[in-house]
Amino acid sequence: MKPQDRLTAEGFLFTDQYQLTMAQLYFRMGLHEKTVLFDHFFRRYPDYGGHQAGYCVSAGLEWLVNWMKHAHCTDRDIDLLRQQTGRAGTRIFSDDFLSWLKRNGNFEAISIRAIPEGRVVHPNVPMTVVEGPIGVAQILETSLLNHLNFQTLIATKAARIYESGQGQLLLEFGLRRGPDCGANAATRAALIGGADYSSNVGISHNLGLFPKGTHAHSMVQLFMALGEGELEAFRAYSEIYPDDCLLLVDTIDTLESGIPNAIKVFEELRRRGHEPIGIRLDSGDLAYLSLHAAKMLNQAGFEDTTIVLSSNLDEMTIWQILTQIREEASRNGLDPENLVKRLAFGVGTRLIVSWGEPALGGVYKLVAVCNEGKWKPAIKISDSPQKTPNPGHKNVWRIYDRRSKANADLLALNDERPDEYKPLLLHHPIQPTKYRSMSEKEISEIEPLLVDVLDEGNLVYNFPELDEIRELRKADVSRLDAGVRRLINPHIYHVSLSQRLWSLKRNLTESAIRPIG
Amino acid sequence: MKPQDRLTAEGFLFTDQYQLTMAQLYFRMGLHEKTVLFDHFFRRYPDYGGHQAGYCVSAGLEWLVNWMKHAHCTDRDIDLLRQQTGRAGTRIFSDDFLSWLKRNGNFEAISIRAIPEGRVVHPNVPMTVVEGPIGVAQILETSLLNHLNFQTLIATKAARIYESGQGQLLLEFGLRRGPDCGANAATRAALIGGADYSSNVGISHNLGLFPKGTHAHSMVQLFMALGEGELEAFRAYSEIYPDDCLLLVDTIDTLESGIPNAIKVFEELRRRGHEPIGIRLDSGDLAYLSLHAAKMLNQAGFEDTTIVLSSNLDEMTIWQILTQIREEASRNGLDPENLVKRLAFGVGTRLIVSWGEPALGGVYKLVAVCNEGKWKPAIKISDSPQKTPNPGHKNVWRIYDRRSKANADLLALNDERPDEYKPLLLHHPIQPTKYRSMSEKEISEIEPLLVDVLDEGNLVYNFPELDEIRELRKADVSRLDAGVRRLINPHIYHVSLSQRLWSLKRNLTESAIRPIG
Repeated sequence: MKPQDRLTAEGFLFTDQYQLTMAQLYFRMGLHEKTVLFDHFFRRYPDYGGHQAGYCVSAGLEWLVNWMKHAHCTDRDIDLLRQQTGRAGTRIFSDDFLSWLKRNGNFEAISIRAIPEGRVVHPNVPMTVVEGPIGVAQILETSLLNHLNFQTLIATKAARIYESGQGQLLLEFGLRRGPDCGANAATRAALIGGADYSSNVGISHNLGLFPKGTHAHSMVQLFMALGEGELEAFRAYSEIYPDDCLLLVDTIDTLESGIPNAIKVFEELRRRGHEPIGIRLDSGDLAYLSLHAAKMLNQAGFEDTTIVLSSNLDEMTIWQILTQIREEASRNGLDPENLVKRLAFGVGTRLIVSWGEPALGGVYKLVAVCNEGKWKPAIKISDSPQKTPNPGHKNVWRIYDRRSKANADLLALNDERPDEYKPLLLHHPIQPTKYRSMSEKEISEIEPLLVDVLDEGNLVYNFPELDEIRELRKADVSRLDAGVRRLINPHIYHVSLSQRLWSLKRNLTESAIRPIG
Repeated sequence: MKPQDRLTAEGFLFTDQYQLTMAQLYFRMGLHEKTVLFDHFFRRYPDYGGHQAGYCVSAGLEWLVNWMKHAHCTDRDIDLLRQQTGRAGTRIFSDDFLSWLKRNGNFEAISIRAIPEGRVVHPNVPMTVVEGPIGVAQILETSLLNHLNFQTLIATKAARIYESGQGQLLLEFGLRRGPDCGANAATRAALIGGADYSSNVGISHNLGLFPKGTHAHSMVQLFMALGEGELEAFRAYSEIYPDDCLLLVDTIDTLESGIPNAIKVFEELRRRGHEPIGIRLDSGDLAYLSLHAAKMLNQAGFEDTTIVLSSNLDEMTIWQILTQIREEASRNGLDPENLVKRLAFGVGTRLIVSWGEPALGGVYKLVAVCNEGKWKPAIKISDSPQKTPNPGHKNVWRIYDRRSKANADLLALNDERPDEYKPLLLHHPIQPTKYRSMSEKEISEIEPLLVDVLDEGNLVYNFPELDEIRELRKADVSRLDAGVRRLINPHIYHVSLSQRLWSLKRNLTESAIRPIG
């Protein structure tokens, strides 16, 4: 894209057409300055084709806020909109609206409360609450969803893959299969959710990490085409990177050529006073090859070398590989836990596209309108009660039980203090007669989850560094019940309503449904 | 991202770490200026979970070449790489390599031949052939794959969805579920592959199209929260957009509220001298609702209004909806083909993420090395013969049969002229004894598919406009056999080798495999 085109495509007009037609309608009706509240939330966990996540990891907020800071309606944007005509050949956008948009086409009037990045999040819980004049709050919808849906999706997948790898080093390798420049957002989200490092050079440096990677098959091929072989290729690599020698051993034949050649080069390295890092396996039966590679490396005296596995890995394949290794290690004269501890995982395609569920259906719903100085909750009735959003000005609280495990997220009205309710009633979000009561001694902590991020366009939040975000994620995941962390068929985490929110929702629903006939 | 961070993350360092470590190795070995040839191709059609594509649509080339033109190693890039250390705390990249990279870190030495965007493409056929010094040709790999894999993936999905919609208007609505800024690339690819228009404002304008969209549920909700109703919301819309009035009718109840209110407003519009466009259905049973909406609109005298369907559509759901409408229309007193002709499809999530198969596994393989002025073909042996790339300097030809249908793609060596072979032998790519012969009269045309795009960094190709690319796609799809176009279980299109290429591949494979033991 030309720089001018990029400004257009990634700036203020990074939105859907209907946001602009609605904004003009509000402008023409004199409604555009009405303050409204939109909740952003997702309705269900990603379902990777038969196995559903038990939690998500929030990500994307800092990039969204950065985008909001820079995006504003430019002269060129106005020119393009001025040229736009409808079916009858007349202009879609009138001059009065466009001159309003020229002055007000930015997000300086928007306030945002949000659940910080790295935190564990659950369905129907507002992750982001947007307050502002409906004209611009409406236009914001598309970009907000774009930024938060995607990074939350990828951070969640990364958290699952990290969980399956049981804390072993996880490398993100997906740039080549990633979605154009969106791959950088994916890398960041993967690093938030569970990847330790990435191969993606530029974004890693931006985030303060060194990118990781050694060599590809093509290096070995080049040496072969020049009349030399795998051994010479490995030797060259070990000479140039004596302290970072990790060799890809499957270009010709892993067990017959790659590992024996790697061992020769490792021995030469050691004689020169350096220790190798290890090998990478990128094809074939990775469980079987790991066992045999470990045996061969051990016999040669390289018990401490790392074995990096890559090739279409995800949480299911890693889990399967670890299970098989644990079952077969002893039979091969290996200590299973020792072998597991020397593994690392390079995960590409299946992380960067969230294989199995490549989209998160986050939505942005009008929940309140301020009319003549008074907030009025808004509702949208749906065929399925699950899809009816929770109305009104709300806060979100996380309830921890006596073991300090997160027990439920509670949605309450803005002026409620659930920490003062004794006992605390947690109402089922849909079923009228279902609720649960927690006594004071059953609760170790009640934590508000939303933080102030933007106050009428002003940043009132210090965005944490990547490391801090990852610590938040690790702490939150460790405070989940083991059943919720399970990869398959996880225990369902409770998201409940306060008694007052429940009553408000029921009353609004009943008054919105007109009797039929 | 800050502008400086963006330059880093989307510029020359939009690559994998191992490309840089290999480049340094080549530099230190004095190999970095060796001219090599890399083929880019994909190995199999996307498989959307049980139903596989019969063809792909090439996309992404113009954006790749644009990226190559602007990407160069900046001072900041060099600084970042200089700071990078390995396990022993010493620098990964040495000063001599970095000063070479500072001077040569760009793509001015690269030549590219490629199959143009919009053309139908098949597995194992080189879509892009890169020639240049291995140092930079290696670094290019990641970004090339990123740009071409993603847009080809989305263009292919769009072509399938267009096919399922039987030529009815197709609107791309996916920005909110798209991958960060990569969503713009997806919109472009969707417009190449089959979407007529998109809701994405900025990129549509860049591509010379007007974005499409009308209003969301939130507009109706706002009116309700202000004490008015759906009818007043519709009326407001029709007053502001009298010639572009398309109403979303499912905020409250489609058949009981939305359509009756839309009809009232349409009647008012008509009295004021305007004709409505129609309605949009965004939830529920879209086949059932289409039939009933059509009946209600017809009875009110709005037979020509459009019915836009949206909500989790893809090629399978559209096919199913059209099938059901055709079966049930007459029973409802409607002409099935009339009803189909008034439908349009708004496709969001499932197009923008290529639901079912969210990645295309395009690869970039070394196929030849120029050593002392002589080209030597390179080979990589794989466990499965399907994965062994076709070696050497090649051309690609498309063979059309007497009906002018594409019959096969033929890979031949660079100096071969298949149009001079009579008869033409088409060798099976793997099986040694399988080939087919076509006589002169069985062939109507033999078309070379690769065009020159870059000649040592200089653009020697006029990138066609979006409209021209779409015409290429339509022409190519129309020249496919109906069996290949089928959505489910398509006929397998032949990709064959020339006799000489087949012999070369066999000889190289045999000489690369060392006897074991």
